[in-house]
Amino acid sequence: MVLAGIRIILVEPAGSRNVGSIARVMKNFGLHHLILVNPQCSCLGAEAKQMAVHAQDVLESAVVVAKLTDALQGCKRAIATTARPRDWDIPLEHPSIALPWLLEPAAQPAALIFGREDSGLTNEELNYAQRFIRIPSNPEYPSLNLAAAVGICCYQLGESLESFSPEDNSSQESPKTDLAPLEVVEAYHQQLESLLLKIGYLYPHTAPSRMEKFRQMYHRTQLQNREVAMLRGVLRQMEWALSHQVEEGRSEGVME
Amino acid sequence: MVLAGIRIILVEPAGSRNVGSIARVMKNFGLHHLILVNPQCSCLGAEAKQMAVHAQDVLESAVVVAKLTDALQGCKRAIATTARPRDWDIPLEHPSIALPWLLEPAAQPAALIFGREDSGLTNEELNYAQRFIRIPSNPEYPSLNLAAAVGICCYQLGESLESFSPEDNSSQESPKTDLAPLEVVEAYHQQLESLLLKIGYLYPHTAPSRMEKFRQMYHRTQLQNREVAMLRGVLRQMEWALSHQVEEGRSEGVME
Repeated sequence: MVLAGIRIILVEPAGSRNVGSIARVMKNFGLHHLILVNPQCSCLGAEAKQMAVHAQDVLESAVVVAKLTDALQGCKRAIATTARPRDWDIPLEHPSIALPWLLEPAAQPAALIFGREDSGLTNEELNYAQRFIRIPSNPEYPSLNLAAAVGICCYQLGESLESFSPEDNSSQESPKTDLAPLEVVEAYHQQLESLLLKIGYLYPHTAPSRMEKFRQMYHRTQLQNREVAMLRGVLRQMEWALSHQVEEGRSEGVME
Repeated sequence: MVLAGIRIILVEPAGSRNVGSIARVMKNFGLHHLILVNPQCSCLGAEAKQMAVHAQDVLESAVVVAKLTDALQGCKRAIATTARPRDWDIPLEHPSIALPWLLEPAAQPAALIFGREDSGLTNEELNYAQRFIRIPSNPEYPSLNLAAAVGICCYQLGESLESFSPEDNSSQESPKTDLAPLEVVEAYHQQLESLLLKIGYLYPHTAPSRMEKFRQMYHRTQLQNREVAMLRGVLRQMEWALSHQVEEGRSEGVME
């Protein structure tokens, strides 16, 4: 079932009542997979249980992990939610536009990521996602309660499913795709970063912000497994060439 | 303003935290008129205030009345929400179908009526409305939390409003993109090919088919000008490193 293939990931939630409400509304719309990243409360305790009412099963099967990357393990696609425009020019999409993308069979398991109640997701965390949604809201008070935001997204996923005919979509958008899991893409990014540091394209203090740009670009591409293998093959060959040079003593040079 | 012309009416609410959450989500979507019919809690007290956060104004201007008919005073149209099919044959509509009907100027002031947390609205109360909506949900656990139901309806009202004014929408979806012209992307591909030949990743007889894969991948990405500049910067730096090595005499090596 396609809704059950979507994980709801909460990064550092701090309100156990919110977590309980989220379990309830997830089950209301047919979602079951809840993952808490480094929770800041006893988020699956008594208050959560009280709010979950008849969704105790969602709470009981919830998984607690230390890092966002652990939560994303095995996922093919991830969408992050964010309340405010940030200092980057990645498009924030409307939930009704972006969420159907998680329902395609090739996308699953898929992830929908929500940030902290007070401060949302950091830029670094946002970079683990490929698309970004913002729930349109009143500019005078745009900040939704976490459980309200999850509820609206679950509702919108249900709506999208109703108007969704997998045959049309899959044949049109993704001809037999073999999407690379996010951790495979991340391993490529790390290999790329280490090479770029080695050749002096990156410096340690500029690496994080510059790597953000590479991550954004490659996430948008939705790399397939064979493409990641190809890109990593290029890196390996370059590393081989470089290691030879290093052995022979690298000369100093001024970059253009 | 057309959203402000819609009253949210809660019949005998019993949870003050719910009422506070409702005030918040109403303001999030531009609604301000909250009416409580015979509340069963100190529904505008401390707990409500805590949950309302920056929507204290909605709580402070909320009106408490004794009967549903008082709450409906002056309204032109009313829609009631109900969770379950009842023993009457009035159709339950989808929120996206029925809610736009409250946005028509002729309809206002209009009302959206929600029942008790545990038992909803009585048949008698339902009879004060003209249309009836049910939020589609999982048959295994259809019963939504009251605040979640109000939140979803407010979101749907906002959606319905947006589809009236398409010009608001377009600005949100397409960010300021700066797509690279195809010839710029092609110049990158050629520079990439020449580097890959130099490092021995490509051989002249395999280059065309392999470069096809790179072209497919990067075309799918829809590279922006600054991204092409970044990718070419990496190639330049790599070429610089390599040219140094070549000058120093490249040793023969067996590739893995």
